[in-house]
Amino acid sequence: MFENFEYLNLINKKLSDYCKGENTLLQAMRYTLNLPGKRLRPILALEVCNALSGEFKNCLPFACAIEMVHTYSLIHDDLPGMDDDDMRRGKPTNHKVFGEGVAILAGDALLNLAFEIIAAKETVDLVGEKLAILAARALFKASGKDGMVLGQVIDLESEGKSISQDLLQCMHINKTAKLISAACELGGLAAGTDEENLQKIREYGLCIGLMFQIMDDILDATSDKETLGKNLSDNENGKATYVSVLGLRKAREKVKELTEKAIEAISYLGENGETLKKIAINLSDRVK
Amino acid sequence: MFENFEYLNLINKKLSDYCKGENTLLQAMRYTLNLPGKRLRPILALEVCNALSGEFKNCLPFACAIEMVHTYSLIHDDLPGMDDDDMRRGKPTNHKVFGEGVAILAGDALLNLAFEIIAAKETVDLVGEKLAILAARALFKASGKDGMVLGQVIDLESEGKSISQDLLQCMHINKTAKLISAACELGGLAAGTDEENLQKIREYGLCIGLMFQIMDDILDATSDKETLGKNLSDNENGKATYVSVLGLRKAREKVKELTEKAIEAISYLGENGETLKKIAINLSDRVK
Repeated sequence: MFENFEYLNLINKKLSDYCKGENTLLQAMRYTLNLPGKRLRPILALEVCNALSGEFKNCLPFACAIEMVHTYSLIHDDLPGMDDDDMRRGKPTNHKVFGEGVAILAGDALLNLAFEIIAAKETVDLVGEKLAILAARALFKASGKDGMVLGQVIDLESEGKSISQDLLQCMHINKTAKLISAACELGGLAAGTDEENLQKIREYGLCIGLMFQIMDDILDATSDKETLGKNLSDNENGKATYVSVLGLRKAREKVKELTEKAIEAISYLGENGETLKKIAINLSDRVK
Repeated sequence: MFENFEYLNLINKKLSDYCKGENTLLQAMRYTLNLPGKRLRPILALEVCNALSGEFKNCLPFACAIEMVHTYSLIHDDLPGMDDDDMRRGKPTNHKVFGEGVAILAGDALLNLAFEIIAAKETVDLVGEKLAILAARALFKASGKDGMVLGQVIDLESEGKSISQDLLQCMHINKTAKLISAACELGGLAAGTDEENLQKIREYGLCIGLMFQIMDDILDATSDKETLGKNLSDNENGKATYVSVLGLRKAREKVKELTEKAIEAISYLGENGETLKKIAINLSDRVK
């Protein structure tokens, strides 16, 4: 989707390097980390850094830390006590392969590893202490009790219930958009951007993050359900979606509106922002 | 056990402050965080800091971050996919009260919060960027794939198996002793101690950490089993313990040896080390 295979290969190599070793825990961590994926968050971080003329090597550890956080959340989301999913990206989920106990711990260790990467001597020698602290602050504010984990709790609590558009938006901003926005912010930080421009980068990330989630809902609702004649408002887990709450037409309008807002936020970058503009358009126009 | 009620009250207040708010997630986080406990790890951090003439206020955020890590590990340890415990410190476990999904997420959020605390502006304004990074590095090295989580995986894998004394020691050093040692190290860091003395503080922590775990095994094996005539080698979960592997007499010898080694490590502190010496003796002499 983003066509930057150079970045993708370098990310994948570095992710594996961080989890080298042969014990069960490391195998379980690598299993989900190495599932084929878009690497949306680390690529966004690196593309933002590049658009702002930052150095790739300064952003790579941040990009990997973000992917560790994202991957841990997938492992825990799939657990029987959460979404109880057997398959992820065409492969058995972590707990199906390693058992529930090891899967919980592999998730814990990946989140922990995100901290280790940011505080590592290797990282701090590259980016300096001040920047490492700012990156940690931005990332973990987005991923914890005021961000992703809060969104996951709202998600659990809304199961089988009818919820308002406001609560749905709050859930997705926390569960998905804040981490994507943090990925962009860390790219900006790695490039040494000032607060005024960081604010625009965060806005871009928040818009494409929310749009990404609405597109997920649209694709879920339309992919095989139209052909199977199922109700568009049905979600597999009985969860509220943008399609069930807003309807398909309005959900698509919202995608368009957020894409325009994302592009507007980075318009100040001019030609340097072309790749980020393309990513926004591709995300709004994707198929599963 | 440590008789420092002033520290205990200040720790408890600060821990609650970090998790203020009324949503389900914060309630679940506070529920286990507020269970009555010894607060061994944060008290150790503060007592080490005090013994090294450091300032209490610089160490308090670190002490709280350590307790967040310890508490998350308790919540996840109790889950059905791990030890499947219904009770913790005389109260129903987190997942019994809030459900498994919220319990997993409350644990995740507590681990995340540990890093938020260390990277917080409030903390960094107190201790400086360099020290915050060193503290994060020491804590999360001890709690992740090379420490606590690794120990938990070894623990899961050894269930129902006969294991060697070496593997048992490796398990407990990783699962318990490294985090206790990190607590001591963070106290030393908060006091601005140099590397040579930090090494002695780490050694003290590692010895009392391992001794603490062996005492747990001894107390588990002797508390009600002697009176009930059960086999001393039986552990409730079929897990290997120091008593089942070494026998009671040798386990007690090991406790004595580790206590002496801990006291020796901090003997250079002279009178300033009296409280740390007392803590080691009290831990080696405790009843449940």
